[in-house]
Amino acid sequence: MLPRNPCLANIKAGYLFPEIARRRRAFTAAHGDDGKPENRVISLGVGNTTEPVLPHINQGLINGARRLGTPEGYQGYSDEGFMELRERIAGVFYGGQFGADEIFISDGAKCDIGRLQLLFGAKTPVAVQDPSYPVYVDGSVLIGAAGAWTGKGYGGISYLPCTPENGYFPDLAGLPRDGLCYFCSPNNPTGATATREQLQALVRAALDTGTLIIYDAAYGEYIRDNALPKSIFAIDGARRCAIEVNSFSKTAGFTGVRLGWTVAPKELAYAGGEPINADWNRISGTVFNGASNIAQWGGLAALEPEGLQEIRSLCDFYLGNAALIRSALQGLGVSCVGGDNSPYIWAHFPGRDSWDVFEDILEKCRVVSTPGSGFGPGGESFIRFSAFGRRPDVEEACRRLSRLGGAWSGHNARNDAGGGPETGGLPLFSQYSPRKKYSPAENPI
Amino acid sequence: MLPRNPCLANIKAGYLFPEIARRRRAFTAAHGDDGKPENRVISLGVGNTTEPVLPHINQGLINGARRLGTPEGYQGYSDEGFMELRERIAGVFYGGQFGADEIFISDGAKCDIGRLQLLFGAKTPVAVQDPSYPVYVDGSVLIGAAGAWTGKGYGGISYLPCTPENGYFPDLAGLPRDGLCYFCSPNNPTGATATREQLQALVRAALDTGTLIIYDAAYGEYIRDNALPKSIFAIDGARRCAIEVNSFSKTAGFTGVRLGWTVAPKELAYAGGEPINADWNRISGTVFNGASNIAQWGGLAALEPEGLQEIRSLCDFYLGNAALIRSALQGLGVSCVGGDNSPYIWAHFPGRDSWDVFEDILEKCRVVSTPGSGFGPGGESFIRFSAFGRRPDVEEACRRLSRLGGAWSGHNARNDAGGGPETGGLPLFSQYSPRKKYSPAENPI
Repeated sequence: MLPRNPCLANIKAGYLFPEIARRRRAFTAAHGDDGKPENRVISLGVGNTTEPVLPHINQGLINGARRLGTPEGYQGYSDEGFMELRERIAGVFYGGQFGADEIFISDGAKCDIGRLQLLFGAKTPVAVQDPSYPVYVDGSVLIGAAGAWTGKGYGGISYLPCTPENGYFPDLAGLPRDGLCYFCSPNNPTGATATREQLQALVRAALDTGTLIIYDAAYGEYIRDNALPKSIFAIDGARRCAIEVNSFSKTAGFTGVRLGWTVAPKELAYAGGEPINADWNRISGTVFNGASNIAQWGGLAALEPEGLQEIRSLCDFYLGNAALIRSALQGLGVSCVGGDNSPYIWAHFPGRDSWDVFEDILEKCRVVSTPGSGFGPGGESFIRFSAFGRRPDVEEACRRLSRLGGAWSGHNARNDAGGGPETGGLPLFSQYSPRKKYSPAENPI
Repeated sequence: MLPRNPCLANIKAGYLFPEIARRRRAFTAAHGDDGKPENRVISLGVGNTTEPVLPHINQGLINGARRLGTPEGYQGYSDEGFMELRERIAGVFYGGQFGADEIFISDGAKCDIGRLQLLFGAKTPVAVQDPSYPVYVDGSVLIGAAGAWTGKGYGGISYLPCTPENGYFPDLAGLPRDGLCYFCSPNNPTGATATREQLQALVRAALDTGTLIIYDAAYGEYIRDNALPKSIFAIDGARRCAIEVNSFSKTAGFTGVRLGWTVAPKELAYAGGEPINADWNRISGTVFNGASNIAQWGGLAALEPEGLQEIRSLCDFYLGNAALIRSALQGLGVSCVGGDNSPYIWAHFPGRDSWDVFEDILEKCRVVSTPGSGFGPGGESFIRFSAFGRRPDVEEACRRLSRLGGAWSGHNARNDAGGGPETGGLPLFSQYSPRKKYSPAENPI
């Protein structure tokens, strides 16, 4: 029989979110569900949205589905996407600085990130913010651009630490030459948002080192501080060193609908001068067959004035959730960042193991969170809270968290991104007895 | 700047279908469109469906889009797919021989074929039927499992000729050891369908040589001869040597909706014994984020009794088109195969260059076809006709083709799959003067 792709042996454990789902199921199986609202398990974990699609955008989806049932409305393959959608994205999000042939419609940022690796192949040095969204690293391992797990990270990946001390913006001296750098702002998982000056420094460093930035702007519409750029293409020079991936998932409520886009500027070229845009067109046409046309009709509706208003109000709603979570955590004296211009709150539990804190929160509060260590070595001792829950669930989760207040006496709330060294604090939940550990056998992949 | 993935330099020319679209546009630009129905360009080219989605399935899509607008109906990410859809596919298409965790919902066969390459990596020998659907080979080149174009094919690919002489079933002695074999039946492009005995021989050869079959069954529902298997898993032993990809595209009219599935049996293992199903689950969860949930709700409707009836009648309709095309070609004395249990007709023009015949048919009949050489070296001198057009278009295209009858006098119609050596025939359109050739500069990628 044929051998396994050796890269697969390098991937450790399960992908983060399936593993969380597995632990949640194990918890529910062990503790049952007595039906009481106060005992219900609530998720502030995965970044899955929960609010219904708002009416104008929803009507776009419904109309799209309807027209497929009519001879005059029926459409088949759309390859790189509806030309009208590509044009509208270029206009709405990029002020027309790109042509439609520089915008590629995808079935979501994660899927395109997987395919983007094909542009560069197995020998490209890869840098990531640490912590970062898992697909950057896992995708690099799958394609062979990263090697085996060393205990502190994957071989061949340059981890650029993003910490309270550096305000969650990495030291760019760590960028390898002629490599790839994944950069996400507003960041998943930290919720930190890079300033214009920081992004200018990033573009400068990329041009100096021959780095191609793959900029993940999926949370750009959550930015409420107008001084913060929503796109890397707000920065001069970015067209020569950046590809941007983006998504309707978290803005139009399309996580399950699957629609996103990638911007590949025509100026972008490899070391040998070959245009990257043409290769991306070729890859998209070869191993992808277009986003669902129903999703694209929904996307068109989302970019009409009423749709844009709905995007604004949906993001505002989740930012309201984020403010509640952040306030509850700060009330407990937990240091955190994010939640102001992003839907994620990154909470620090100094000296604690992330999965231990995850299990503690699950057991004591029946709240599912996301262990920071799942986002890379730099996430250890952090927990990510997602603001994508239903409002009553978020309120109930915050009530449960707040009731644990006794555990944190003496730990003052502050904003990690505000700079300055971390203040000390009591380990979270330290008064509770040790909980049952999951054995590796329960987690085979 | 970082270097290009060296594999990209190996891919020649444009992907077949964008190239056809480009030539069609160039033809229309050069000849204009006078608005007369008899001068309209008609496509019997790409496999894009044209009939509206039938009512019951369409209502499934509409209801799916509607529920996203309601708090109780909203759903986000579905990862490997709705459990109910996975179960229903296992029941409807595989008689329950697979568990839901062996069925993975995809956004279409082509996309999964691209990702499947990640299971095996760059060093796996790859065999394909020749001719074959381009993504098998192009995807192998992208991942590095195939090398540079040699003039007769890509280095590292074993091309298994499928010819009139062997009834379009390849000599399995050509299978490399411990490699991958893509196999499509009913075949795209030839339209030939393998018999049970042929598939038994394929499975036996795979087990003998350590070959993993990636079986593309996307056209299985077009089979009307009950003796012909619709799935490789109708054959004993296939669970130990085959992955099957399949699709709703050509059966439910979902080419633009994007929905398919892949079957990865639990028995499948690599040389080292690692289970392939678990890796596929990991890859799907890492670089894919699920098919659109609206598409999946549509898929559920398609698998209800009314939906299955619609699938049957839609395939019957396109088979009716196929019969018209086949009859027109045979009436002209053109040898062809397919069109009986498949929506493709594979027409032979001995001694002619495929692109020349394509251009001739475009110029003389204003009919877009697909040059066989785009499907591999074995496709040279063939043309693929697709039955997915609208009925009046197909009828008009057949009328135009039939009017060229004078060019084929003395060439008797026969079925290539019927066996026996090819009979001779006059070169098609030989009485016409040479047409303008496209220069390579017009076709940069």
